[in-house]
Amino acid sequence: MNDLIHRLAEIVGPTHVLTQDGDTAPYLTDWRGRYHGRCVAVVAPASTAEVAALVRLCAARHIAIVPQGGNTSTCGAATPDTSGLQLVLSLARMQGIRDIDCANNSITVEAGATLASVQTAAREASRLFPLSLASEGSCQIGGNLSTNAGGLAVLRYGTMRELCLGLEVVLADGRVLHALSGLRKDSSGLDVKQLFIGAEGQLGIITAATLKLFPLPDASATAWIGVDSADTAIHWLGALRQAFGDRLTSFEILSEPCQRLLDKHQAGRLPFIAPWALLIELSDAGDSAELGERLTMWLAEQQMVDGVIAQSEAERLKLWQLREDMSETQKKEGASIKHDIGVPSSAIAAFIAACGDALQAAFPGCRIMVFGHAGDGNLHYNVSHTRTDNAALFDDEAAVNAIVYDQVAHYGGTLAAEHGVGQLKGAWLARYKDPVALSIMRSMKQALDPQGLMNPGKWLSQI
Amino acid sequence: MNDLIHRLAEIVGPTHVLTQDGDTAPYLTDWRGRYHGRCVAVVAPASTAEVAALVRLCAARHIAIVPQGGNTSTCGAATPDTSGLQLVLSLARMQGIRDIDCANNSITVEAGATLASVQTAAREASRLFPLSLASEGSCQIGGNLSTNAGGLAVLRYGTMRELCLGLEVVLADGRVLHALSGLRKDSSGLDVKQLFIGAEGQLGIITAATLKLFPLPDASATAWIGVDSADTAIHWLGALRQAFGDRLTSFEILSEPCQRLLDKHQAGRLPFIAPWALLIELSDAGDSAELGERLTMWLAEQQMVDGVIAQSEAERLKLWQLREDMSETQKKEGASIKHDIGVPSSAIAAFIAACGDALQAAFPGCRIMVFGHAGDGNLHYNVSHTRTDNAALFDDEAAVNAIVYDQVAHYGGTLAAEHGVGQLKGAWLARYKDPVALSIMRSMKQALDPQGLMNPGKWLSQI
Repeated sequence: MNDLIHRLAEIVGPTHVLTQDGDTAPYLTDWRGRYHGRCVAVVAPASTAEVAALVRLCAARHIAIVPQGGNTSTCGAATPDTSGLQLVLSLARMQGIRDIDCANNSITVEAGATLASVQTAAREASRLFPLSLASEGSCQIGGNLSTNAGGLAVLRYGTMRELCLGLEVVLADGRVLHALSGLRKDSSGLDVKQLFIGAEGQLGIITAATLKLFPLPDASATAWIGVDSADTAIHWLGALRQAFGDRLTSFEILSEPCQRLLDKHQAGRLPFIAPWALLIELSDAGDSAELGERLTMWLAEQQMVDGVIAQSEAERLKLWQLREDMSETQKKEGASIKHDIGVPSSAIAAFIAACGDALQAAFPGCRIMVFGHAGDGNLHYNVSHTRTDNAALFDDEAAVNAIVYDQVAHYGGTLAAEHGVGQLKGAWLARYKDPVALSIMRSMKQALDPQGLMNPGKWLSQI
Repeated sequence: MNDLIHRLAEIVGPTHVLTQDGDTAPYLTDWRGRYHGRCVAVVAPASTAEVAALVRLCAARHIAIVPQGGNTSTCGAATPDTSGLQLVLSLARMQGIRDIDCANNSITVEAGATLASVQTAAREASRLFPLSLASEGSCQIGGNLSTNAGGLAVLRYGTMRELCLGLEVVLADGRVLHALSGLRKDSSGLDVKQLFIGAEGQLGIITAATLKLFPLPDASATAWIGVDSADTAIHWLGALRQAFGDRLTSFEILSEPCQRLLDKHQAGRLPFIAPWALLIELSDAGDSAELGERLTMWLAEQQMVDGVIAQSEAERLKLWQLREDMSETQKKEGASIKHDIGVPSSAIAAFIAACGDALQAAFPGCRIMVFGHAGDGNLHYNVSHTRTDNAALFDDEAAVNAIVYDQVAHYGGTLAAEHGVGQLKGAWLARYKDPVALSIMRSMKQALDPQGLMNPGKWLSQI
């Protein structure tokens, strides 16, 4: 053991090998406090070469590695097991912005760069890096890639997979895959980087990425709109896309119970309560006043009943704050069983109706909070009060999950839309995913990590 | 042999098993007439189940399968070898449009559907399927996916990989991967469909796909603009994207020699001759007159010297026809050594200068025709007249390729941007691609097709 620590220190420097409980603790518990692990050490390499040296050392000694970014996984993807034998490899020291190529609209960053720092670097070059999500101040690009993160602007800009042009990856045997690239078009063989996107560190360790940038939009227009049903919401999604094309950047929905909760805890901030609320945003080159005017006119033509259009940046931020406060506000009502699901947009209304019915039949009076990124079909679907005493909620977790995921499967959906699978949902993945797809995933693992040392204990060990 | 033909006929019906030379000939030569193969038979299954049955039969008898779509490969990807032992599996009977989901903006089609038929089905539903390329009347969706096809609108809409939401694939052992999906966001495990995109039929046979649709733009504005250098062209690309955002749909360039050739063979059709010509198109929701007016004003602000803006659909088509005539027009001057390369947009000018210099140094007086999709970095780079007598051109092919691909590699580019690798470029891929990437490709082949029966003899056998 001491010899191992010594060797680790030789690679990364002694101050970057943590072994004391007080030092390692933050790395051993996940963000939601659901998983608690132990480790042989936490190491923080500063370069791809150091990552490769660490991986070679571990491969030779058969030591498992848990790569960790901002440690914001909601599924326990970055928490080691309780054996105390795994090594946590933190990417936190690899935060470099290696290159910004404005003419090519691309940026090359190291895996430990926070999402916010990449957004900032892009903005300083008058460019947009469009990935945006709640934990952007802490989460890191490597984790975003490893979970194929989504967020608020997928409707227009795509998920992390679509935003990624190239990757640098340290493989399980310590070799380095050099697949950084600024190319938009490439059909020269298999696109091997795709294997590591969404793999949650189980096939190798992403050390750097080249990402797409976009022109920074000058103009935005933001509205909060009430509609009478989920069906109507989806109708509006289509009509907005037809009328405004790619300008439609975000299309969020909140159910009436969500709005009532916001109103209860933040009285006076909600403009009105409707069966469904939409938060929509257009963005464009050009002028905000003109875009806002155009949206106002269009909404008038649609005979919108309830709606407000932000008249200033401050009003715009207030509307977004309502949406962002949903998670915190829910906590005030106690725990809930959370689901990060996706269905085709066309199935959202039918799914919500059927899943609600099934849950009410099994747990009369249960509370269901539905909100999320309806523009891309991704819903946060949270269930609580399955019993009078919500303290016993988690006794019903498996039953609730089975009902929700059955309906998700029925409507051609996914049980993990943007948070990944981690160790939380591996068994569910095994139950619902196409068996041939699962079999291919297992063979990829066997091909790329035959020793099973890359983040073991997560979903690839469970399927 | 007779027994095999009998078994094939049991699966697909006797009229769909071709064995006579006159019947099989069209399937045994590639589009450019460069490769000539033989086969044991050509079979045309009508369903995924029939494809799976054929693959199982072949796996049991160790017979190699060459999947073939519209047979428009420019790299020999769909031509069997000369052994006469391979089976050509034509997807031509699997042309069904299985589903159009307008609210989800997605379409599910069989692999044998031609690109044009998918475009038409989308348009009839008031949607756009944006992939567009010269062979769209013949090429099939399965081939488009297998080469990660690009074309004219990648700048805005992405390549076939980005347009694909889900796949159905028959694996080398006859199992069927059910990964059709209309989801925009999905982080439930590895995205296994990515393996088959760009694999040119060497890992399995794509039988159906779910593809993204977009709102059909109502408005377009098209201009032909002269600029003084490739540097200026790339400057315009950035300025146009900043000013018009995602409205910029196509950004094509043609060098002066290309324009002179067009002028020689099609006198009077070219508005002017400039050091470089740009063909740009904006598209949008809304009104064409308004968009055209906006483009006109913007171009005036840029102090455009030479330029015409199409004032009618007829004029728009005439401008595009010039671009599309480039390939045919070149043929009138004799053969050329063609390259389908890509570099980051920011490197286009430097690449063109350096590669031109290197070629002129080696082959003084050679002719270089450069045109293509500069918006995404993809250039068609064609070289001829390396000697006084162009008939001996192909004696210099390897030397020319080495010069061009050395420069491509130097500028971080690709030797196959949108046509794939086929059997034409396997050796070059082996020479220039990252060795670790090549090693991963080989292990994917080993994992998914250990018998080596899926389209053998193409690039995965050459790397």
